[in-house]
Amino acid sequence: IQSKLPQVGTTIFTVMSALATEHKAVNLGQGFPDFPMSAELSGLVTEAMQNGYNQYAPMPGYMPLREAIAEKVEYLYNTTINPDTQVTITPGGTYAIYTALTTVLQPGDEVIVFEPGYDSYIPNIIVNGAIPVRIDLQFPEYKINWAEVRLRITPKTRMIMLNSPHNPTGAVLREEDIQQLRSLVQDTNIIIVSDEVYEHIVFDNVKHQSILRYPDLAARSFVCFSFGKVYHCTGWKLGYAIAPDAFTREFRKVHQFNCFSCHTPSQVALATFLRNRDSYLTLSSFLQQKRDYFLQLMKNTRFSMLDSKGSYFICAQYDRISDESDKDFAIRITKEFGVAAIPVSAFYQDGTDNKVVRFCFGKKEETLALAAERLARV
Amino acid sequence: IQSKLPQVGTTIFTVMSALATEHKAVNLGQGFPDFPMSAELSGLVTEAMQNGYNQYAPMPGYMPLREAIAEKVEYLYNTTINPDTQVTITPGGTYAIYTALTTVLQPGDEVIVFEPGYDSYIPNIIVNGAIPVRIDLQFPEYKINWAEVRLRITPKTRMIMLNSPHNPTGAVLREEDIQQLRSLVQDTNIIIVSDEVYEHIVFDNVKHQSILRYPDLAARSFVCFSFGKVYHCTGWKLGYAIAPDAFTREFRKVHQFNCFSCHTPSQVALATFLRNRDSYLTLSSFLQQKRDYFLQLMKNTRFSMLDSKGSYFICAQYDRISDESDKDFAIRITKEFGVAAIPVSAFYQDGTDNKVVRFCFGKKEETLALAAERLARV
Ligand SMILES: CSCCC(=O)C(=O)O
Ligand SMILES: CSCCC(=O)C(=O)O
Repeated sequence: IQSKLPQVGTTIFTVMSALATEHKAVNLGQGFPDFPMSAELSGLVTEAMQNGYNQYAPMPGYMPLREAIAEKVEYLYNTTINPDTQVTITPGGTYAIYTALTTVLQPGDEVIVFEPGYDSYIPNIIVNGAIPVRIDLQFPEYKINWAEVRLRITPKTRMIMLNSPHNPTGAVLREEDIQQLRSLVQDTNIIIVSDEVYEHIVFDNVKHQSILRYPDLAARSFVCFSFGKVYHCTGWKLGYAIAPDAFTREFRKVHQFNCFSCHTPSQVALATFLRNRDSYLTLSSFLQQKRDYFLQLMKNTRFSMLDSKGSYFICAQYDRISDESDKDFAIRITKEFGVAAIPVSAFYQDGTDNKVVRFCFGKKEETLALAAERLARV
Repeated sequence: IQSKLPQVGTTIFTVMSALATEHKAVNLGQGFPDFPMSAELSGLVTEAMQNGYNQYAPMPGYMPLREAIAEKVEYLYNTTINPDTQVTITPGGTYAIYTALTTVLQPGDEVIVFEPGYDSYIPNIIVNGAIPVRIDLQFPEYKINWAEVRLRITPKTRMIMLNSPHNPTGAVLREEDIQQLRSLVQDTNIIIVSDEVYEHIVFDNVKHQSILRYPDLAARSFVCFSFGKVYHCTGWKLGYAIAPDAFTREFRKVHQFNCFSCHTPSQVALATFLRNRDSYLTLSSFLQQKRDYFLQLMKNTRFSMLDSKGSYFICAQYDRISDESDKDFAIRITKEFGVAAIPVSAFYQDGTDNKVVRFCFGKKEETLALAAERLARV
């Protein structure tokens, strides 16, 4: 069997989580909370199962959930979307992104993708025979250099992939970025895939610049979301994609023969739960408190913390021993000091190494305290 | 946006289910049960959620579930598989098939696919740039003509897709078929994708010819299974793929960037539930009774029933009014007589029309009785 993804190994998340378990380390690597999710929400799933919602949901998703999403989008981003023709429920945000790329990309198409970046993007491009055009975010603020983007656009540029709030850095797009993006894509056929799975986690009163706020951009975009990230149930694997009618039609052609439909009881439960606005509006302050708590604790260490304006990730620089790589450093602190993190070099195709690791602070205070105590010894 | 699947419309299942709802018809179309699933199994999911199993499962699946699957396979098919390197949990059987094809197929590869056949296969081939080589099953037994298969093999043949018990016809492969297949593929690099989602539904003491029973064939195969079909919870979207180590490695490269992982609470629940062998061993007799009941009832109609040896589907021939198509007939009996079925022409790329419709008999007796009563008027 000839590999279509010869360069792909096991994701760094799996590697580091396995190492953390083996060495009984505090796991601040893979992004998932260690506190319980809402019992009310899981109770609603139980109720849905008991009420017999155990057979196929409609292929595009359970309609009351799609309606609740449209209402939420209207309320948050001040734009009207049609739940029937623009919203598709997917088994997670990662799948929504994969399906969007598979819907659009033809062999030879070029896709602009920023690094560091979530590790599924580039394999998703390659498996479709398309070509990733990698552009570094500007260290250490991880801002987009729009002048460089402009230079890298060619007649073959088919897509730009965005992610704000950004994994792994916590950077967020600002209004200036949106203006730059706008002027860049107007008069082109470039399609945008916007990964907004951390939409509800922004700090310091920054506003999440959803592509959905900008109708001219939304008209050329697939915007991808996640319930797992919002409701502390990453293992439920449920998300959705919002796109214009014509895009959604093509997206569903791929989706209906990929997974076909999604877990029905969760969809029924979320259709109710999502109507409670506090369920997502409280998330930013909840996680900002954790970020600030972790920042405070990390003052006692030799790490210098970079800025995180969103997501539940924060990056940290450290002083490197001679030529130890990020990855070796991350492995060493897991083994010797009992704290797992993700080396940010893993988010670059060429392994660019700025001696930075990523911590997930979406954890209980006691977990963060124990981790910081251990990290103080590094 | 240029369509990668221009020939694809909405699946017939969605179309007929919507029509059934609109006309309050008895829905014997889309394949799903209308009786409740096991309360014990859904109770185990509730328990898993309460016990905090709500975060990412390992990418290949929850290990105790993979172990339970390996044990089941050993017991049923008398072969040892390694749960660590050969079993991957997927969000449904359809996804397992999609991922297997995407793992293997390169543009220009030819794939032998039988018709009528499940409607995802051909779009899965095309979206990967490969070429479907369609071969008709021999009407009305729907047997494979192996001599024809032999003639259609070329140096570009990369894959053969099998499905037994067969959707939509209920035909099952026999040992002779396996011998033919064997002699056909030996000394080739042809890969087999075997859709065995109805493995536990075989009638009249026929034995399910799993590819896993034949180590020489299993060594070149992806074998795809479904929990939804076995445990009456099609809306849970959970299944798995079994393949040799090297195949599984490549399969997981696609899977880890498609859906990444699957619904954790269901996996935890099934790891326990699957150990109860009766949970699947009783399924054949349970559904054979329903088949026989439906056959009995259908004697009062003008339909002539074809043979079903497995799955929860049975096909029926009818006398056509002039040149009415299968599809128009199915729509008409839904609207005028209140029973929805699936026109078998929908399972042929070119719409081959043998005046046959498919009924799903995995329904309550009262549902089947009401349907037959109405069908007696046709
Ligand atoms: C899908 S596993 C990785 C989870 C995640 O988003 C991350 O840790 O970056
Ligand atoms: C995935 S919807 C169709 C269900 C099914 O397998 C069928 O009805 O053939």
